[in-house]
Amino acid sequence: MVDDADALVTLTPEVFRKERNIDARILHEVTEIDLKGRRLQVRQLDGNKKAWWEPFDQLMIATGALPIKPDVPGVDATGIYGVHTLQSGIEVRTAVDQERPKRGVIIGGGYIGLEMAEALVRRGMEVSLVERAEQVMLTLDTDMGALVSEALMAVGVKLFREESLQGFDVRDGRVQRVVTDKRTLPADIVILGMGVRPNAALAKEAGISLGEKGSITLNDRMQTDVEGVWAAGDCAQSFHLISKRPFYVALGTVANKQGRVAGINIGGGTAAFPGVVGTAVSKICAAEVARTGLQERELKQLGWKYVSERIESRTRAGYYPKAGRITVKVLAEKGSGRLLGGQIVGYEGAAKRIDILATALHGGMTVQEMVHLDLSYAPPYAPVWDPVLMAARQVEKLI
Amino acid sequence: MVDDADALVTLTPEVFRKERNIDARILHEVTEIDLKGRRLQVRQLDGNKKAWWEPFDQLMIATGALPIKPDVPGVDATGIYGVHTLQSGIEVRTAVDQERPKRGVIIGGGYIGLEMAEALVRRGMEVSLVERAEQVMLTLDTDMGALVSEALMAVGVKLFREESLQGFDVRDGRVQRVVTDKRTLPADIVILGMGVRPNAALAKEAGISLGEKGSITLNDRMQTDVEGVWAAGDCAQSFHLISKRPFYVALGTVANKQGRVAGINIGGGTAAFPGVVGTAVSKICAAEVARTGLQERELKQLGWKYVSERIESRTRAGYYPKAGRITVKVLAEKGSGRLLGGQIVGYEGAAKRIDILATALHGGMTVQEMVHLDLSYAPPYAPVWDPVLMAARQVEKLI
Repeated sequence: MVDDADALVTLTPEVFRKERNIDARILHEVTEIDLKGRRLQVRQLDGNKKAWWEPFDQLMIATGALPIKPDVPGVDATGIYGVHTLQSGIEVRTAVDQERPKRGVIIGGGYIGLEMAEALVRRGMEVSLVERAEQVMLTLDTDMGALVSEALMAVGVKLFREESLQGFDVRDGRVQRVVTDKRTLPADIVILGMGVRPNAALAKEAGISLGEKGSITLNDRMQTDVEGVWAAGDCAQSFHLISKRPFYVALGTVANKQGRVAGINIGGGTAAFPGVVGTAVSKICAAEVARTGLQERELKQLGWKYVSERIESRTRAGYYPKAGRITVKVLAEKGSGRLLGGQIVGYEGAAKRIDILATALHGGMTVQEMVHLDLSYAPPYAPVWDPVLMAARQVEKLI
Repeated sequence: MVDDADALVTLTPEVFRKERNIDARILHEVTEIDLKGRRLQVRQLDGNKKAWWEPFDQLMIATGALPIKPDVPGVDATGIYGVHTLQSGIEVRTAVDQERPKRGVIIGGGYIGLEMAEALVRRGMEVSLVERAEQVMLTLDTDMGALVSEALMAVGVKLFREESLQGFDVRDGRVQRVVTDKRTLPADIVILGMGVRPNAALAKEAGISLGEKGSITLNDRMQTDVEGVWAAGDCAQSFHLISKRPFYVALGTVANKQGRVAGINIGGGTAAFPGVVGTAVSKICAAEVARTGLQERELKQLGWKYVSERIESRTRAGYYPKAGRITVKVLAEKGSGRLLGGQIVGYEGAAKRIDILATALHGGMTVQEMVHLDLSYAPPYAPVWDPVLMAARQVEKLI
C-alpha cells in the first residue's frame, strides 16, 4: 500500500536537532539506570562502541514493547519474522521481494497477524493462519470474532483455529514447516503475531515498580514511583476508565497521549492522563473491525452483570450504492443500562463508528440516553437509525 | 445514483394493512380538525371525492413541511420545481430526462440546493446557484461555508453569492430566465432550494399552539397542548439541548425519533424525547459536510462567550493512500471549555466524525475532557491524533 518506507518516518534525528533543539541519538543503547547516582550507562552501537555514564535530572523511559516469542524448537530459524518495528517490517518486505516465498504461515490472529495475513495474500501467496483460540481477534467477543474469521477465509486465508504451535521444522537453519498439535504446514515464510510485552527490563532492574503485564506503573501525570522518572507508551501501564483498574495496551494513540502529558509535566506544566476505554480498530482487506470498552470475557472476570445485543444493518441507506454490511454489538450493565462496551465488524464506513461508543463510554452514558443521540444522517452515510443507535435500542429492551 | 424510485419507498399502504394491521389511507386529505367533537373532516382525493367526519380518540399530526416558495413574479411558471417529496423528485427527474434542459439554476445554497446542484452537474448540465448570503450552507459558519463554496465551484457550479432573487422571466407559461438583483441567468430548469416551513396550518386552525418558526409545540412526550393530540416530524417543534431553547429542524432522524416516542406514548407506554443538538450531514459530489451544536451566529444571538479554532488535517494517516483533506472547527464556551458545537468539511471519511462531537455534546463534555478521548486509530482510518482531537487541543489553548 505504501511503497516508500521512509514516508513512514515522522521525525528524523536531524529534525529533532535542528528544529527542536533536542539531541536525539540513535544507535545508542542504555544498559543500566542508576537511580541513586541519577545517571545512565550508555553504549554506542556503531562506531567505536564506547560506553559511558550520562547524568540526568529528569528521566523519561519510552522503551516500547517487544514481540512475544514462543518458547518452541526452531523459533530462531531463518524465515521466521516478528513485525513490531519499521525495521522488522522492512525485513519482511525484503524477504518477500527477494525470496518470492509461495507459502506463508501466520502464528496468531491478533491485529498484526491479521494485517500480515492480508499483506501476504495481496502478494499472491498461499496464506495459513494458526490461532490457539476458537476465533481470531481475541479482543472481540467470540460471536464477533467469528465474523472476522469469515472475512479472513473469504479472502482466501486458510484458518486453523483451536490449534497451538508446537515448533518449527528447520533445515540448514531455515524454516521448512510449522508444526501444530494437529498438523504440519509447509512454510516458506513465517510471521509471529503473538502480541507484545512491555520492554521494561531496564526499569525493573533499576528498581522501578512494574504492574499490569509487567508494564511500568505510573500515576496519572505519567510519573513512575521514583521522583523525576517518567514513562509513557508501550512500556508503560495505563488505566481503564470502565473497569477502573490498571490496564496494559500497546497502541500508538495511547502512547501519543501519554507522551504529551509526560512532556508537559517534565517541562514544568501540569497535565493528567485519565486513562483509556480500550478502543482499537483494524482493517483486514475490505473488512473493518473495531472495539471499545469491556468485552464479555473481561466482564465475566470482573463478575459484572451485563446484557448485550448484536444487530446487523448497513453503513448507508439500504437503497444507496455501496451500502455495506455492518454488525454492531453493544454491551451494557444489567439494571442501570450503563454502556460497558461495543464492537463493530463490517465494510466501508463501518469501523470509525466505534468512536461514537468510545465517546459515550467517556461520558458515562447509558443505552437509554444513547437511543436519543442526535447522530448524523444522510443516505450516503447511514440509515436513518444509525446502526449504533439500533444496537442501543435493542440493548435497552434487555436492561 | 438510485435508479428505481420505488426502492425509496420504505412502507406501502399494503404493508401497513397486511403486516401491521394499520388502515393507511393515501389520497385522503384532512381538511379540518374538530377538537371539541374529537373528529376530523376527511376528503377523498380520487374516486368519488366524497367527504365525511371521522372520529378519533387519539390524534397524531404528522403533516410534515412545505417548501418555502418565494413571493416573486413568475414563480408559478412551468420549469420551476421545489424538491421536498419523493413525487417532486420524480417530477424533476422526468423533466430532466424528457426535456433535456441544458442550463439549470438553483435558488438557495442549503442542503437541497447543493444536492440538486450536484445532481444536475452529474447530468452534464451547466449549473448556476444563487445564494443571498456571503456563503452557501448557512448552517455552517462563514469560514466553513467558504470551503463548501469552493468545493461547489471545483465541480463546475457557477456560484452567485450575495445576490437575491427578484423574479423569473416567463414566456408561454414557461421559465426563461432567473432575475437577481445583479444579473439575469438563462434557465431551462429552476430548482427552488430555499428551505421548508412546518405544514401546520390545519393544527393552527384547530387552535393547537404553534411555536418556533410556526411548528407545533410539544412537550417531551410529543403531546401538543391538547390532551390526546400528538405531533412529530417536520411539522413539530423540537428542543435544542445546548441552547436549552425550542428549536425547529426538518430532518428525518429527528422525525423518526419523535415518531417513535409519540407512538410509545399513544400506545400507553412512557417515553420522552429530550431534544437535539442540531446535527446534520450532507454530501456534495466528493465533498462531505457536517455540523452539530451551535454555530457562531447562534452564539452571538444568545450572547454567549465562546472560543473556536479551525484545523486542517487528513482523514487517514498522511502516508496512507486516499488520505483526504479534512477541516474541523470546534466551538467551546470561553472560561468553562464546555463544547458548544463543531463543523466539518472534507473528503471521504470526513463527515461521519461529526458524531463524535454530537455524542460529546450530549454528554456535556468540555474540550479539556475531549482531548483525552480514546478514539480509534489505524492508518486507514485516521492520523494518530484524530482531526477532532487536534481541533479540541487547539481550542483548549484558548479557553
